[in-house]
Amino acid sequence: MVYEATATAPVNIACIKYWGKRDTKLILPTNSSLSVTLDQDHLRSTTTSRADESFEKGDRLWLNGKEEVVKPDGRLGVCIKELRNWRSVEEEKDSSLPKLSQWPLRIASYNNFPTAAGLASSASGLAALVASLARLYQLPQNASQLSLIARQGSGSACRSLFGGFVAWREGEKSDGSDSLAEEIEPQSHWPEMHAIICVVSDAKKGTSSTSGMQRTVETSTLLKERLKIVPERMKLISKAIKDKNFEEFAKITMKDSNSFHSVCLDTFPPIFYLNDVSKSIISVIEELNKSNGKIIAAYTFDAGPNAVIYSLKENIPKVLGAINKFFPTSEESKDPFKLTPVDLPENFDYKVVREGGWEKGSVKTLIHTRVGDGPRTLGKEDSLLNEKGEPKTLA
Amino acid sequence: MVYEATATAPVNIACIKYWGKRDTKLILPTNSSLSVTLDQDHLRSTTTSRADESFEKGDRLWLNGKEEVVKPDGRLGVCIKELRNWRSVEEEKDSSLPKLSQWPLRIASYNNFPTAAGLASSASGLAALVASLARLYQLPQNASQLSLIARQGSGSACRSLFGGFVAWREGEKSDGSDSLAEEIEPQSHWPEMHAIICVVSDAKKGTSSTSGMQRTVETSTLLKERLKIVPERMKLISKAIKDKNFEEFAKITMKDSNSFHSVCLDTFPPIFYLNDVSKSIISVIEELNKSNGKIIAAYTFDAGPNAVIYSLKENIPKVLGAINKFFPTSEESKDPFKLTPVDLPENFDYKVVREGGWEKGSVKTLIHTRVGDGPRTLGKEDSLLNEKGEPKTLA
Repeated sequence: MVYEATATAPVNIACIKYWGKRDTKLILPTNSSLSVTLDQDHLRSTTTSRADESFEKGDRLWLNGKEEVVKPDGRLGVCIKELRNWRSVEEEKDSSLPKLSQWPLRIASYNNFPTAAGLASSASGLAALVASLARLYQLPQNASQLSLIARQGSGSACRSLFGGFVAWREGEKSDGSDSLAEEIEPQSHWPEMHAIICVVSDAKKGTSSTSGMQRTVETSTLLKERLKIVPERMKLISKAIKDKNFEEFAKITMKDSNSFHSVCLDTFPPIFYLNDVSKSIISVIEELNKSNGKIIAAYTFDAGPNAVIYSLKENIPKVLGAINKFFPTSEESKDPFKLTPVDLPENFDYKVVREGGWEKGSVKTLIHTRVGDGPRTLGKEDSLLNEKGEPKTLA
Repeated sequence: MVYEATATAPVNIACIKYWGKRDTKLILPTNSSLSVTLDQDHLRSTTTSRADESFEKGDRLWLNGKEEVVKPDGRLGVCIKELRNWRSVEEEKDSSLPKLSQWPLRIASYNNFPTAAGLASSASGLAALVASLARLYQLPQNASQLSLIARQGSGSACRSLFGGFVAWREGEKSDGSDSLAEEIEPQSHWPEMHAIICVVSDAKKGTSSTSGMQRTVETSTLLKERLKIVPERMKLISKAIKDKNFEEFAKITMKDSNSFHSVCLDTFPPIFYLNDVSKSIISVIEELNKSNGKIIAAYTFDAGPNAVIYSLKENIPKVLGAINKFFPTSEESKDPFKLTPVDLPENFDYKVVREGGWEKGSVKTLIHTRVGDGPRTLGKEDSLLNEKGEPKTLA
């Protein structure tokens, strides 16, 4: 009998940004956040966890084939320990259960998107780890309860335990027991919500979000004002999602992205994530909305120069047309939805982009995806571990 | 008898930024600001004003040889009208005075720096206009009183009526009578204060400050917090100047520049003035300070990508060394102080700048200047007007 589970988890991109911890150990945020879960058909982390009495003592973990040290009090270690504790509670309740909690673990995790793409892989990665261990251990906890664990691995990972539109409630308790994720609306509520990720080249490695956000907490004079504004934005965007009011959703999304990058700039020394290409994408989206007479696309940027553009499926051809026009990519991107870009409206003001446009490759590639579901459980045939409990060679 | 006066006025660069009007007609700001007046030996506007009964009716004005229409209720028109009113008060008091207030004016103004340099010429230009007319009209008002007029021509022009370190008090009154400039310390207090202006190429024209600041007032959620912070900064930087505490002066200057650009980014749609070169200059200054073990240079940015770097004269060679290293200029800059750039400290981390460095001309040229005096009166030989009251051809 092999005790093993394989799960996948999605990437999520926040519309209301998480930036700042009130507790760095438990990863309790200074504000609630809200994200859209992206489709795992396109972007996902896959994790296989296996428990085996015969394994050499100690847990081992491989990320994209490379072994990572699991420190007991590190973020990964804490997640594994907490889930093991939950398993042992079950084993105490039911003595017929195998004592998986006492067995060494072998874990292999794999992202289907390159780290170099600059997409945060920690959220999907940690969520896949938690999902696969919860499955392996047959835990009775629901996704929100599991999100408490994922949160301690990587804050925004808690939001990747749900599909659709997901809120991470900041919570009030000092033990973090109410700082969890919950679904606002499922994927099926608004499946027309699509996203184009513009992978922007960056000449220089930016500030890590972990260190950056704490510098903001310590030095920004404007952050406290942002924290006062976020609760209202959470309410308004939740309603916009419920009502499928794209224009309202878009406005709040863009404003909150700007607000987040504002407090980064107000940090001392300042933190910059947007580069000139990012800013140019903002200008193109602004002009696209203007020339269409309504908001059909919303930009948002995380801790890096990549743009994520939310748009309803019907308007994606217009977004693709605009982005293709000004940002010729170096890598051809295959559109899984096979939508054909359309030309810019006649009244589009070309002057919003710098003269001569951008050189090929300023945007490396585009990834077209949409709102997706939460973690999935895969079968044995998808295991990332070989018989010995080591990672299979991944092509 | 020719009634004519020629005056020059300096450029000023704010350390505490003016951004936002509470009254757009009277140009009353949402916050006090503070600037360093730069040396007119290097950067100046010169204005000649002449009143002559025999001129054809109506005032005429030339800026850099090009005639500008003077609208009676436009900003220039309002300044001229107010100064004329003050002259007529004097004429009523003393009937022996020639009735200059009733005579048409001819005004020629000239900036000795190219508009393309991206330096705000409206402040020095308006200040020179006010200074020359005040001289022509032999007005008894002092510089602070004249600053009330200059302010209505272009907000920050009020600060160019003083040398040294200058505060523009926001004032409380709705008629603006207490929104004026005053000297914090004269040039002679801290003559070691030098400045390097890095003229940064910009591929795209940015948002004008006049329209930009009102969009911030209307849409930024963070501005009100900035307005709460500024009064304390005004106090602290005034004390730092009084104490000649460069490190404190520098820290506040950099933070306030960042805070200003933060609220620009928080504007909707967002306003960006810093480009990738600007940000790279910030990184170099940060690292220069770090590698020197103390703050020897402070960056500040107005409504454009140009950096102004404040540093004490003794440290300017280090600043020049750092900037020359990473930003080879397209135009050779002559250093009026003949200081020789020195190499970077050995512990300077080169990785703060993007790999490969910046291409030649990303910074077009450097202007080295220092704190300077207030408006100067020139002699007849420097008049910009010919006998007929038209601008002389300027080489």
